[in-house]
Parts: sequence; structure tokens; C-alpha cells
Amino acid sequence: MVKNFEEEFNKLNLPDDLKKLNYEQCRSLCKAIRDVLIKTVSKNGGHLSSNLGTVELSLALHRVFSSPKDKLVWDVGHQSYTHKILTGRLKDFNTLRKENGLSGFCKPEESVHDAFVSGHSSNSVSAALGIAAAMKMNGDNHHAVAVIGDGAATGGLSFEGFNNAGKSNTNLIVVLNYNEMSISKNVGAIAKYLSNFRTKKSYKRTKTVVERALDNIPVLGKPIKNTLKISKDAIKNSIFRTTLFEDLGFEFVGPVDGHNLKELEDALIKAKAMNRPVVIQVNTIKGKGYAPAEENPGIYHGVSSFELKTGNPDVSKCDSFSTVFGCELARLADSDDRICAITAAMKYGTGLDKFAKKHRDRFFDVGIAEEHALTFAGGLASLGKVPVFAVYSSFLQRGYDQLIHDLAISNAHAVLGIDRAGIVGEDGITHQGIFDVSFLSTIPNVTIYSPSNYDELKACLSKSIYDDSGIVAVRYPRGNEKECCLKMDYISTDYELYENGSDVLVITYGRLFCEVSFAYNKLKNESKSIDVLKLIDLNCFDKKLIEKISSYKKIYFFEEGYYNGSVSQRLKNEVNKLIVTAIYGFVPQASVDSSLERLGLSGNQIYKRLSLEI
Amino acid sequence: MVKNFEEEFNKLNLPDDLKKLNYEQCRSLCKAIRDVLIKTVSKNGGHLSSNLGTVELSLALHRVFSSPKDKLVWDVGHQSYTHKILTGRLKDFNTLRKENGLSGFCKPEESVHDAFVSGHSSNSVSAALGIAAAMKMNGDNHHAVAVIGDGAATGGLSFEGFNNAGKSNTNLIVVLNYNEMSISKNVGAIAKYLSNFRTKKSYKRTKTVVERALDNIPVLGKPIKNTLKISKDAIKNSIFRTTLFEDLGFEFVGPVDGHNLKELEDALIKAKAMNRPVVIQVNTIKGKGYAPAEENPGIYHGVSSFELKTGNPDVSKCDSFSTVFGCELARLADSDDRICAITAAMKYGTGLDKFAKKHRDRFFDVGIAEEHALTFAGGLASLGKVPVFAVYSSFLQRGYDQLIHDLAISNAHAVLGIDRAGIVGEDGITHQGIFDVSFLSTIPNVTIYSPSNYDELKACLSKSIYDDSGIVAVRYPRGNEKECCLKMDYISTDYELYENGSDVLVITYGRLFCEVSFAYNKLKNESKSIDVLKLIDLNCFDKKLIEKISSYKKIYFFEEGYYNGSVSQRLKNEVNKLIVTAIYGFVPQASVDSSLERLGLSGNQIYKRLSLEI
Repeated sequence: MVKNFEEEFNKLNLPDDLKKLNYEQCRSLCKAIRDVLIKTVSKNGGHLSSNLGTVELSLALHRVFSSPKDKLVWDVGHQSYTHKILTGRLKDFNTLRKENGLSGFCKPEESVHDAFVSGHSSNSVSAALGIAAAMKMNGDNHHAVAVIGDGAATGGLSFEGFNNAGKSNTNLIVVLNYNEMSISKNVGAIAKYLSNFRTKKSYKRTKTVVERALDNIPVLGKPIKNTLKISKDAIKNSIFRTTLFEDLGFEFVGPVDGHNLKELEDALIKAKAMNRPVVIQVNTIKGKGYAPAEENPGIYHGVSSFELKTGNPDVSKCDSFSTVFGCELARLADSDDRICAITAAMKYGTGLDKFAKKHRDRFFDVGIAEEHALTFAGGLASLGKVPVFAVYSSFLQRGYDQLIHDLAISNAHAVLGIDRAGIVGEDGITHQGIFDVSFLSTIPNVTIYSPSNYDELKACLSKSIYDDSGIVAVRYPRGNEKECCLKMDYISTDYELYENGSDVLVITYGRLFCEVSFAYNKLKNESKSIDVLKLIDLNCFDKKLIEKISSYKKIYFFEEGYYNGSVSQRLKNEVNKLIVTAIYGFVPQASVDSSLERLGLSGNQIYKRLSLEI
Repeated sequence: MVKNFEEEFNKLNLPDDLKKLNYEQCRSLCKAIRDVLIKTVSKNGGHLSSNLGTVELSLALHRVFSSPKDKLVWDVGHQSYTHKILTGRLKDFNTLRKENGLSGFCKPEESVHDAFVSGHSSNSVSAALGIAAAMKMNGDNHHAVAVIGDGAATGGLSFEGFNNAGKSNTNLIVVLNYNEMSISKNVGAIAKYLSNFRTKKSYKRTKTVVERALDNIPVLGKPIKNTLKISKDAIKNSIFRTTLFEDLGFEFVGPVDGHNLKELEDALIKAKAMNRPVVIQVNTIKGKGYAPAEENPGIYHGVSSFELKTGNPDVSKCDSFSTVFGCELARLADSDDRICAITAAMKYGTGLDKFAKKHRDRFFDVGIAEEHALTFAGGLASLGKVPVFAVYSSFLQRGYDQLIHDLAISNAHAVLGIDRAGIVGEDGITHQGIFDVSFLSTIPNVTIYSPSNYDELKACLSKSIYDDSGIVAVRYPRGNEKECCLKMDYISTDYELYENGSDVLVITYGRLFCEVSFAYNKLKNESKSIDVLKLIDLNCFDKKLIEKISSYKKIYFFEEGYYNGSVSQRLKNEVNKLIVTAIYGFVPQASVDSSLERLGLSGNQIYKRLSLEI
């Protein structure tokens, strides 16, 4: 059936021909698309729930608007799969999230219909406003449409966008996709606020009833009539400014049922005709149409791949750096009530769910709000708490100023658990955690640990809480620890030097240590030996160590991070003959292994490189 | 009179004794404080308007709350002078903004009454929430009070704070200081929204009238009564959620007259008793009590110093890097309608006022919202506009992720005019522009120019718009160009090499070039010669130039920026014998000249350093 659909569908002139379909055909199309989504994500991994929730919305948008003349900006972009299918990318859809394949997010270089890059949360309103403003300057009457979830709306950037857009007098439409979830369960006042409007009927009923009451004024006696005449304006003002977005200067349409195509189209047509900034609230169900996902949208938010019938996600059974971090932090907090844990909407992803369960009063999910997370941590630290913020490397980028201003300047003691450090794989270019070492190094008095296994992670976490001061970052890769042939019989938090009497030294840290171990082993089998220096504290270089390093004839540094600002770059100042392999630009999507291979950082590549020269 | 006041005042046990004063004494105190503020700022420079506006508010806060048990967090901190005086710092107030003197912002190490570091906008709600949450965990019933202006409230971080605070169930009070101004005239929907509540009386009247109308229900006939019974809830809901902050989960008190001490105290006492998150809107007049400042609060926001009688600010008469940048950009835009200018509430500070006047439709003041400014620029660029964002170096720190995600990844062409790059002087530690080169260098494909005079600034700006791609930063110091004895008869945007046959090379860029010129001249008078390499494009090093540099016997690099991630650090990789003087930590307040002297970067220090060794 899906096969037939594909053949038929590929004949269409997309997205224009979508406007010619009748509702019956649209329903079939939505069903077929859902099948494709479930089938593809079960194989390739990716975001399921959010995409199942926006099938009708994507179709409605492409039937009411004309991309690429109208510009669609998808916030985060994890809900744009249907949009991709509807704009001619069905035939490549099996390459989703694969090397050289379709991106799991929006990417202008992939299609003219992807109006703006996505991946990081909360940028859509600002980007679409920029587009709408440019259109206005050009005398172009088309629309810029931002689609943003209620989760992404908790990010400060989206507020800045809303605050500027309301008064902009542009053809900007913001579709607020309300699904009561960001990645974890949604938090904050905005979420509560919107849920008040969740039930469209009661909202409409209230409005009608009050208006009817006002219409009845003429039957009242004169004094009351006068009183109510004044109050009429007050009430009207209240009603017409009932929503936060109207307060911000937008027209407000909705809420509409996000799975009712007709209702969606009516709302979009209405909004389009207004020719000024409009917010449309669309209520959708995450995971719509796939029972396991509807029941557990959190688990199916971003999955690696899963079994189609039972819906069992492949991941989350075994330990990972994230879960070990979360468990250890929860354990330390058992006997230390100063420890507080903070996440920015990543309770599960960062493994903090254990902490949340055990220490509810000291757990803070601040929504997608990394800046707030850090400044809030500064407040906690100022009264002697020890805040631990678990955050993905690429999302910590949002908090650069808060790290400097609200923590480093006052030398506040705060711990960062930096998850997804290094190459992240299929999520691609926007999610690579390759900048954290560089940007953290530009801030005075930051300590950075990069453990390469669970035991080191635990030791570093404990040290960062009990022995260190200032900002202390413990960074670790996505996934789980790997078996290494090189291992000391003690646990260090500084560095480990594996000496075999070689005149070749290989320096590395973090995940790459296992890759270097692999190369070490392979070389050993060829009776070639190398010495290996594994860094754990990335600022561990003292004079003695520098001398030791310099004593080698050949010295290599393999680093899974952007070169400018890297550890290897700084070490090269001291050890001029250092030969560095690092990352020299943005890294596109591919599996972690393949990425490392391409970057010259896999065990295999490291072996090849070394075997040529020793 | 002021002298007498000082003697009397210094006898008080501050801030506790403030509670013992009667209103008559309070009025005198406020008057005397205003005199001190005007006198001191006229000498030392600083923020005048904002401080004159918060005299009564500061006094009311210290009479109702008990610092340091209750914690006062001042957003930005540019309005905290009265707070400083009221907490025992009058005797040092003449050292305001001086080297080793009182900071112009809040600084925990300066006083136990400064609960959190300030300087950068919009962090107060998040920081105070962290403090309030810690208090709650400690079973401490005291209050955390954030004081935030309507300007700072346009920053996304403050929204993230509000969004998390509303549901927090802590003793957090946010005093929203509404004065219709941020630094330039306030922008955005939030400002418009608040101004609706500016007139306290009409707000109160409406509320009362409607409530009275509802009380009259019993006199109505039965059907209407029933109708109105339903609507009663609807109306009540509308009224009790009338303000945006109530929508966000806060209690809302006000607006109150910010210059009426009794009214202020009543509101604060009421808020204190609520024991949950409260927003109090306080309407104040910027510059209150000093005629020139009341009339022109924008000019008196941050001044260097001014003549007391006429109120003429010392600055703004002559050219500066900022005004030259602004004029040149406006001129280029005359013949190129792709050019758009963006500021984050710094229209005057960045010199964009000329552009705003000439090209109103292409000028965007986005409020204190640097993240939005950059993502918005990405939107403009995606349709072929050339956005130019003029921003202070230290505030650009807020946009690190947007630079990566919304501009660099798609290689969007956007120009940054980075003002206040390098040492800024009296504004101190939070405002030093010493990180921009480092953090911009951690982003792929960013071009950085650092012109050292007006002609170069113009040439770099033009090149960045017409010849370059991607993100192009043109960075320049606060203040005006200085006379240099070293000068080429052409204008370069790469580098200039001044050769005198010396075997000593001194490398530098930007403002320091004049300092090096000074040293050059002084050495020349002693018949000692140096060669000088002035960088303009900070990535100008090609193989030939590296070879040329390496050919010198001694090579010095003087850099006005943080060392990690710096140009000199990277060059040292290529030229190992490079001897670097840069900045190795945060830099406290002092005049620019004195700071450079202390850092070993003044002409005099450079001369001393070189004369020892050549």
C-alpha cells in the first residue's frame, strides 16, 4: 500500500498540487504519510511523536500558502518530516539522518522550501520576523510563517521575537503548536497559561456568554445601565486582550484542532487575510496515530530506532554516560543537601530523572531556558548551594554570557554536566558538541574534565563538587563507555601516562582514548609500540608534564573538538613539534563512527596515521 | 548643607536605622541623596537619570525589608547608587567608578548588601529566583527582591526568569521599575503593554466599577441573572488575570507612584505579606529632581561627567569610533538599500542615530535582545539583505549560540560592528570587551577586523559589506582615534609593516597600535629602532607573512584581549619564540589609561619592556 502511494505521490508537482486534493484524498495522504514516518523512524531513528502530531498542520500550511514564495520556518525542525515529504523529498526519505542523506532538521541547502536553518530551539519567530521584514522592504506581500511548539516558546529568544514581532506590522504568522509537551513534560507559567485555552469550546463559550450578557444591557434600569456601560469597555478590553499574545500586539486566532484539516485551513486563511502579525494556537496530540507513541510521547521524542510492532525503543535499557551521571549525582545528593540539579527540558536525556524522583525539592526543570538555568544556578550558589546543571554541549552555547557574568566573575561554584560532548552522530551539524572546550577555555577560571569511562566520570563529578571551586565542567560523550585494552588499576582525575619505552607519544582525552587504545593494540600486534597520555583534567599541564611530553621524539595529539581554542592548540604553544589532528569546521550528519573515520579520529585512522610514521 | 547631612547620616546604623525615620526626615534624606548623586556623577561620570528615578524606591525597600537577610538584586545595577549610599557607602561615594573605588554596579565583594553581581541586563529575576529557592530549601522566610526596569524586561533571560518564577512558590518579589525608557527609548510590545497600566487611577477605577456592577446582579430578572452568573466568572477571570504578569502566575500589585514613599511602602508591605511570587509595578520618572536630566534622560543615562549648572555632558561633541561608524554606515546605505542596521537598545551609544534618521525603514532597535538581533539578522540575510548589527563587545557575549546556529552554519552574510572592544574603563569588570576575539575565533568562518583609526574603520566596514562573506566583525574601541607617529600613506585592511631594519619586531592591532607608536618614538629618541607589524585583518597570516615574522631575532606581541583564544596565542603556534603580553583574567574598573598601564599594555609600559631587552 505504501509502495502504491509512493508511486502516485511522486507524480505530483509538489507542493503546488496539494491544493488540488479533496479532503478525502487528504485524509488518505495523511494516513500514508504517518505510515512512512513510523516505518522510517523505526529504521533510521529520529523524532517520531512531534512529527506524527504535525501531519495535518504541515498539509494545511502547504495548501494555504505557496512555498517557497511564502516562507515556512520550523522551530527546532524536529517536526518538519511531513513538510519534507510534501516538498518532494519522499523519494529520499529513507536516507533520513543518514550520511549524505536528508537532515532530521531544516536545512536551506537541502531544499528551497527549508527557509531557515533549524535544530536549536526558539529561533523561529526571530528568523521569520527577519524574513517578513525583508519581504516588507521588498514590497513583497507573501507571508513568513513560524511554527513553534509550546516547549520552544519557553526559550527567552522566542520571547524576544514575540516582543519585537507584535509591533512589526509585517506579514508574520506564528503557528503555536500546543501539545502540552516540550521534550520532557512542559514547565513554567506559559505552559500553564496555554493549557487554560486548551479546550477551544469552553473558551468560545465564555466569550459568547459574556457578549450576550452585554447585549442584554438595554433591558436594565438606568443606573445599572450606566454602570454597565462603563464596565462594558472594561469587559471588552479584558476579553479582547484575553491572551498573552494579544497583549504582545498580535492578532490571536484559535485554538483550533490540529488534526482537523478543514478547521486548520480556515484558521490559516483567516490569519493570512489579516496582513499583520498573527498567532494561531493549534492543539495537537504528540504521537497522533501510533498507539505506543501517543501513550508515551516523551520516550518517542527522539529515538535511535525501535521495533515497529511493540514500539520498544532500542535505547534506554543499558547504562550510558548520561544515566551513570544521573545516578551518581542522585547518590551524592543523598548525603549532601546542598546539591541541586537543574535541567533545561532534558530530564530524561541527561539522566536526571533519577535525581528528580529522589530529591524532588532540589530538582529544577526550567524549560528550554539555558540562560536562566545558569543565572538561577548563580543565585543558588550565592547562598551556598551546589548547583549542577546537566546540559547538552551544543545547547550550553546559549549560556556563554551567563557563564561569564553570572558565575565566573564572582567565582561562583557551579558544576556543569556537559552531555553529548563531541560528535553526536545523526542529529548532525547543529547538534555537534565540538565547541564547548573552546568556548569554556575563553572564560577565566573554568576547570574542564573529560572522563573517558564511567569510573572517571564518577570521580570527576565528586571532585568537581567537593574539591574544586568556580565553574567546573565535566564533559562526556553521547552513548556508553567502551571496552579499552589500556587501563590503569587506579582511577585518576588528572592524566594517565601509559609508558612502553617508545619514542612516540600519543595524547588524547575522552571518547578518543578508546580509539587510540584500538590503534595501540593494532600497532602492538605489529610489534610497534607507542606511549599514550590520556588527559582527564584538560588543564593538567604543569612544567614537569610539559618536559616529559617534550622528551619524546614524535608527539601526536588527537582531539575530538574544534581546533581553534582547543587543548591541542594551546599545548602546541609549549610543545612546538606537536602534530595535531582535530576538527577544523562544522561537521555534517553521519554515524559517530563514520564521522570519526572521516575526521581522521577513528581507531582505524589513528592506526593508519601512526603506522605510516613509526 | 550636604556636608552636614553627611555627618548626620554617617552616624546612623545603616540600613536598619532607616526604619526609624519619619516621613519628613525621609523627604530631607531623599533631597540630600539627590544632591550627592548629581554632584558625584557630574564629577565621576556614571548613570544619573536611572539613579535619580529610584531614590524613593531604594529607601522604601530598605525600610520595608532587612538587608542582608532579605536579598536585593538590582538588574543592570545602574540604578543602585542610592542603595549603596543607604547601606553605608556614602563615605566612599566620591570614589564611585574610580580605580579601587566603588563600582558603578552591584558587586558582592564590595558589600554584603549587594546580593548578586550586576552590569549585564535582564539577569535579576533568574538570580533572585535562585536565591529565593535556596531560602525556601533552607526554611528561611526572608524575601528575595529583584528590581528590574522595563528596558531590561525586554531581554529574553528576564522572560525565562518570569516564566519559571510564576510557578515557583517562593518569597520572590519583582519590582518592575517602569519609566518608559531603557537606554534609548523603549521598544516592543511589552513596553506598549505596560504603558496601558501607566495611569494607576483609571486601572483601579475600572476594577472597582466592574466589581460593583457584579454586586448589582441580584436586582436583575432571573434569565439575565443566570446569564450573568456564568459571565461573572468569566469577567472575574478576566479582571484577575488582567496583567501579563498575572497570566504568568504572579500576584500583581500596582501600579504605584515611585516617588511617593508612603504608597511605595504600602505596596511593598502588601507584597511581602503575600509570601509568594509578586510583581509590583512602580512608575518612576528618569532623572527626577534634576531638570536637565528629567528633560533628556537618554543623554544622562550614562555620562562621562558634566557641568553641574548647565547640565552639559562632557561627551558627544567630538567624533568617536562609534559616530564615525554610524555616519559611514548611513552613507553607504544611501546608495545600497540592502543595508539594514540593528541595535539592541543602543541607538545613541553605537552611533546609529544617524542611520535611524536617514533610513528609518531599515533601522531596527530590538530592545535589549542581542540573541534576537542576530537571529533576526539571519532572517534578513536569507532574503539578500545585508544586516549590520552594532553592539558592545561585552553584550555580544549573549549571542554566541545565535552566531553559530543562525548565521555561521548557513554561512549567512552579516556584519557586526563591535563597539567598546577592549578595555572600557570605569564601567569595569562586567563591561570589558576583552573576550570577543577569543569567542569569535571559536566559530568557523568568521572574519575579524580591528581597525586602529577612522579611515581604516571606514575601509573595513566597506570591505565587510562588499567583499567578504559569512560573519564579518569590525571591532573598535570606546572613544576616539588618537594621533599616531607611525602612519602609511595608503589605507590597508590587511596589515601594515613598518620596517626600519631592526631585528626586533613588535606586533599589535587596534587601539594598542598608538601605544606601540608611542614606544617606537621614545625608543627612536634613544637611537633604538624597532619594526612594527600592525594587524587589521586578524586572520591575515599567510605563509609569506609568517616567514617574514619568523626572520626577526626578537618578536613581541602586545594584545588588548584575553589570552586564551587570542590572536597572539594562535600565532605562537607558528612562531614559537613569540613573546606575548595579553590579558590573563578579568579586569577591574579603572580609567583606560590606567588599566593599560597596569596590564603592561600602555605606551609607557611597552617602551619599558622593550628598552630593557633591546
